[in-house]
Amino acid sequence: MQRPSSIRTQFLSAHDVATIVRRQGIAESLRGMADYIRADYLRWHDFDKNARVACHSELGVIELMPIADQATYAFKYVNGHPSNSRLGLPTVMAFGALARVDTGVPELLSELTLTTAIRTAAMSAVAARALARPDSVCMALIGNGAQSEFQALAFHYLLGIQEIRLFDTDPRATAKLIANLQHTKLRLVRCASVAEAVRGADIVTTATADKTNATIITSDMIEAGMHVNGVGGDCPGKTELHPDVLRGASVFVEFEPQTRIEGDLQQMGTDFAVTEMWQVLQGRSPGRTAHEQVTVFDSVGFALEDYSALRFMRDCARRLGVGQSLSLIPELADPKDLFASIRPLPQANAPNILVTAAKPSATAMARA
Amino acid sequence: MQRPSSIRTQFLSAHDVATIVRRQGIAESLRGMADYIRADYLRWHDFDKNARVACHSELGVIELMPIADQATYAFKYVNGHPSNSRLGLPTVMAFGALARVDTGVPELLSELTLTTAIRTAAMSAVAARALARPDSVCMALIGNGAQSEFQALAFHYLLGIQEIRLFDTDPRATAKLIANLQHTKLRLVRCASVAEAVRGADIVTTATADKTNATIITSDMIEAGMHVNGVGGDCPGKTELHPDVLRGASVFVEFEPQTRIEGDLQQMGTDFAVTEMWQVLQGRSPGRTAHEQVTVFDSVGFALEDYSALRFMRDCARRLGVGQSLSLIPELADPKDLFASIRPLPQANAPNILVTAAKPSATAMARA
Repeated sequence: MQRPSSIRTQFLSAHDVATIVRRQGIAESLRGMADYIRADYLRWHDFDKNARVACHSELGVIELMPIADQATYAFKYVNGHPSNSRLGLPTVMAFGALARVDTGVPELLSELTLTTAIRTAAMSAVAARALARPDSVCMALIGNGAQSEFQALAFHYLLGIQEIRLFDTDPRATAKLIANLQHTKLRLVRCASVAEAVRGADIVTTATADKTNATIITSDMIEAGMHVNGVGGDCPGKTELHPDVLRGASVFVEFEPQTRIEGDLQQMGTDFAVTEMWQVLQGRSPGRTAHEQVTVFDSVGFALEDYSALRFMRDCARRLGVGQSLSLIPELADPKDLFASIRPLPQANAPNILVTAAKPSATAMARA
Repeated sequence: MQRPSSIRTQFLSAHDVATIVRRQGIAESLRGMADYIRADYLRWHDFDKNARVACHSELGVIELMPIADQATYAFKYVNGHPSNSRLGLPTVMAFGALARVDTGVPELLSELTLTTAIRTAAMSAVAARALARPDSVCMALIGNGAQSEFQALAFHYLLGIQEIRLFDTDPRATAKLIANLQHTKLRLVRCASVAEAVRGADIVTTATADKTNATIITSDMIEAGMHVNGVGGDCPGKTELHPDVLRGASVFVEFEPQTRIEGDLQQMGTDFAVTEMWQVLQGRSPGRTAHEQVTVFDSVGFALEDYSALRFMRDCARRLGVGQSLSLIPELADPKDLFASIRPLPQANAPNILVTAAKPSATAMARA
């Protein structure tokens, strides 16, 4: 009989994850995350892929995203509340867990707000390495909010992007990005419009936050050979690309059934053809086939990437000795004796138990 | 502009919840829990009731159970692994969270293993107060595992049950229950068979753990006026009552679509009539209508009860000053500046930023 030494759950707080990223560096964090995501996409068919469960309200959405392979179960809690920024709160907050499939023991509970920002950027880079022109050096970055620095750095460190052309309707967002990335070798170019930012870029990343059917990128902005990394169009009623941009491109997605509902793809008919990224990464489908081809990665964020992200952060935390241990599950000497955990201390004057051999119920007889 | 003072999450560990229950006593904990559950059932239509999302494997199941009203979102993570007891692990472990619907901020993260045991017993008592004969004093308790003490005490404190007739295929389980409840005024009677335990009882509670279509209770054991509280038949392939027991009774359930899949009801045709408990508690449907009537509460555990349970424990923790604060969400001075939480410290010798006015991309030009 195998007896687990403990059922304490490892906990990674927002502060712990920031410590991990600071210690190993953002470049290594993005590279490692991309490696874990790629490795999990290469075994796509090992996963039991559930739909996410969304709870919509007037102001936003709260979702649960579960996924599992034969050994490990993962889920993420994540909200989306665009109006939060007016309250001084992040629009997206997340946490999640890893559990053993064979016992259900939750092994890791972790923040996923910061982790998701890294995984989303790493996934964009994983896709772009297969889809963007190998000679890409310049990226337009439309939307300079919470996700933008992570995108800029993922493309800098993982694809060799040297110049980022920036636009946001809020100039303070762009100023913030520039201040945040002053420690890098990136050439950062402030632009006066989306069109100006996109002109001449090899890659166009959209990461805007408004929950509307916005048209950030129109087909007249698209140049031959561009790769469009559409990050912000990621839930019903929230899009960024004009349908003609998709019509003129080869479109790649994470998990087709989900992207048809949540991605920019929601604007297209069900017969509009797309390719799932696992097919490209496994070499079953071509990614980019020609220099002049326009490619679109219609990113929405898939549970598999959160599985990879939790796995990556758990391994980093172990290696660096970061994190805490949480008493999430009662530790019982006898698993059938849950009551032991709350049993009152025996009272000296209350030996009022009656244990008798079976006979017809005395109280029932009294009543009869 | 309203600025929330903090987005730290309150955390209740397994140890914290045990402290709460020990401090206020198990009787008060069961009474308070029953009050919260009843109050939430009385506003049944305020809730957005989702199906649970299950991930099945050879050895068990891991589920997410979300629910929300207009103000508060709740979810529970819970597993079911019958083989865990061989590993010295609980077969059922759970944790969950409460979040604000208007912002998505997770306000409470809590253990739910111990809490679920209390809520399940409290729900059984809430149902039995409407369904069992008011003069009930004797209960049979079949299955003396982790849930059994909580059932015994809920029926003792909330319904006035004085005698419990015990049976389990494992005599050590019964011995454990008797030892655990020696501080109470309950008369505990050890029985040699299910039939012996059930004979003469006013209420029959089944809380067995085997994941099989077991037939614990057959119709020949049922006496006029009995109330059957079926707790253990709670997932596909796991039942306790012979179909004839259901046929001969008025059957009450928590949430019909769920119980048809998970309850003892899974054995019956879709036209077999049942009544949802909220209708009884709201006075829209009668509960028990005659002294001789046989009633069955086919309990499976519904997300609404976990919502109530999380709410109850949160309020107890506040009153008693128990619990900790967890850094689950990054605290940011500017919510658009997530990167600030991992920004490297400025390096004195690395002022390599280039911020320029927009002009055609220099790198793009160099490549052209």
